[in-house]
Amino acid sequence: MALRNDLLLRAARGERTERTPVWVMRQAGRVLPEYRATRARAGSFLNLVRTPELACEVTLQPVDLLGVDAAIIFSDILVIPEALGLPYTMDEGRGPHFEHTIRNEQDLLRLSASEMEGKLEYVTEAIRMTRRALDGRVPLIGFAGAPWTIFCYMTEGKGSKEFSVPRRMLMEQPALAQRLLDMITTATIEYLRAQVRAGADLVQVFDSWAGALSSDMYSRFAIPALDRIVRSFPDVPVTLFSKGAWFALEALSELPCQVIGIDWHTTPAFARKAVGENKTLQGNLDPAVLYGSPEEIRRQTREMLTAFGPRQHIANLGHGVYPDIHPDHLRCFIDTVQSYQHHQP
Amino acid sequence: MALRNDLLLRAARGERTERTPVWVMRQAGRVLPEYRATRARAGSFLNLVRTPELACEVTLQPVDLLGVDAAIIFSDILVIPEALGLPYTMDEGRGPHFEHTIRNEQDLLRLSASEMEGKLEYVTEAIRMTRRALDGRVPLIGFAGAPWTIFCYMTEGKGSKEFSVPRRMLMEQPALAQRLLDMITTATIEYLRAQVRAGADLVQVFDSWAGALSSDMYSRFAIPALDRIVRSFPDVPVTLFSKGAWFALEALSELPCQVIGIDWHTTPAFARKAVGENKTLQGNLDPAVLYGSPEEIRRQTREMLTAFGPRQHIANLGHGVYPDIHPDHLRCFIDTVQSYQHHQP
Repeated sequence: MALRNDLLLRAARGERTERTPVWVMRQAGRVLPEYRATRARAGSFLNLVRTPELACEVTLQPVDLLGVDAAIIFSDILVIPEALGLPYTMDEGRGPHFEHTIRNEQDLLRLSASEMEGKLEYVTEAIRMTRRALDGRVPLIGFAGAPWTIFCYMTEGKGSKEFSVPRRMLMEQPALAQRLLDMITTATIEYLRAQVRAGADLVQVFDSWAGALSSDMYSRFAIPALDRIVRSFPDVPVTLFSKGAWFALEALSELPCQVIGIDWHTTPAFARKAVGENKTLQGNLDPAVLYGSPEEIRRQTREMLTAFGPRQHIANLGHGVYPDIHPDHLRCFIDTVQSYQHHQP
Repeated sequence: MALRNDLLLRAARGERTERTPVWVMRQAGRVLPEYRATRARAGSFLNLVRTPELACEVTLQPVDLLGVDAAIIFSDILVIPEALGLPYTMDEGRGPHFEHTIRNEQDLLRLSASEMEGKLEYVTEAIRMTRRALDGRVPLIGFAGAPWTIFCYMTEGKGSKEFSVPRRMLMEQPALAQRLLDMITTATIEYLRAQVRAGADLVQVFDSWAGALSSDMYSRFAIPALDRIVRSFPDVPVTLFSKGAWFALEALSELPCQVIGIDWHTTPAFARKAVGENKTLQGNLDPAVLYGSPEEIRRQTREMLTAFGPRQHIANLGHGVYPDIHPDHLRCFIDTVQSYQHHQP
């Protein structure tokens, strides 16, 4: 089916577009009252993730209500550890929690990477339903967590400021750590392939805890896994978003991905210099700017658009939108991007 | 009293030293069994902070047991909000918690910045006791939290990944936020002056949550407060450590401080280039390297020393030592620095 709005895909490929496309990380989420209503019907976050009809419903909401230029399937990066054999709970206000974690070889041997596609059928079914419902309006983004970030959760068992458990494992048991990273990477590739077969037009890999590592450790343990993933998708645009890893932008730019996401600490000029001319950049308004007045949001959004320039840019925030942002402020950001006219040379 | 080991102070002033001085953030802490014993006698972390005899005892432990080139007074950055009128609790394994936070003008008006020195007498008394006990062996470092970081705790009420509450206040109520920042800054200057009068030879300002802000917001709200602090100490070396704020290194280098701390994400070359030639740099071994073997610790420590070079460097980790590091590994780091011979030109 031909897309009626393919701005995202053309921008990802570096082609000239009439205007800069825009979508928002966590656009299908608590910022929308309509999401909160569906979430209440689901009973829990995990039920929402696991029920294709409801996941499809919240995926469509920002397309219908905010007019974004892309949908991103509603799901969770932690479905991968769960499918590998580590179930988790999502505690309200506290984040995810794994009862069992991986600390030694015995723990690792209990995992199974077989039949990932079958175990994650609820995600691919949600993608198929969403594709049908979108009916070519905008592209659909699939996603997964990056192996390093998934490794963090599987070893630490929860969010952390320091992630000293996974970093300790990299130092003390590098061979075991590598085996776990390889297993996660293989499972992630299979999972993303299933998403593409189900209809994802672009896939994004979120390395939320990239910023916990030094540049050296990121290059040794995280980059090779990302490289394997990117090379598995020669025909689909891939976005890599390594949050907090400004120091890894050069290493990321050497991978054959199309788009690199940048957070709000990195200026567009710094990112472009580190990444070079061959990639599209995605980002990066400070999410806290949406707490400001509409005038301030417009001013800073335009400043960002000017700094990135008219090509090779997909507008987004530098991180997920905060749940207590007023939806009108999010609309103001999106509208400002969509009505902005670059002074083309 | 003349110091028998003044390497830290000479390095801070940029003077040539026989070798690179070394101390470790959180050296007086849970990494030492002797600390855990004193902490158990104190009954709680906050009792330990508030009892000068015990705070003095744990301050001396790393000097006696590890042979570091500086002591740093054992205390907590949150004594400032408490002295301003916001008490807090320290929940085991959960970090600090404030029952009341600052959200509006009424909250602000309940605070009082008067008599800071009297309210914080227990810290200055611990400094006087430690100075006497050190008897000139090594310099004593005083410290405080940076106003932005203290502002984070006083508004958010606890640690956070995003600190969206303080960032929201900067956007929505900038004038109120500035008043609170000014009040914290004034109190911090008075507090650090009292520490210097009591015997602190150098003061360090910890901006632990610097990395939550964009470069623009850090320059607008955090840097001016740091500038006021640094200018209040024309005769005492000041170290600024803005964790996660690689993007602010240039702005920090324009302040008249002597030392800039850097975390483990920033390479020595990047930091030196951003900061220029006029400051001493402090840091920055990845704290997770101490999970590695002694060979690995020695290798990476030497690499770091070579990268910083023989002058204008104070060796340290890039962040506080993790409590589950073996003390022998910490000793290995310290010994490697103290026995390292730079190939001087």
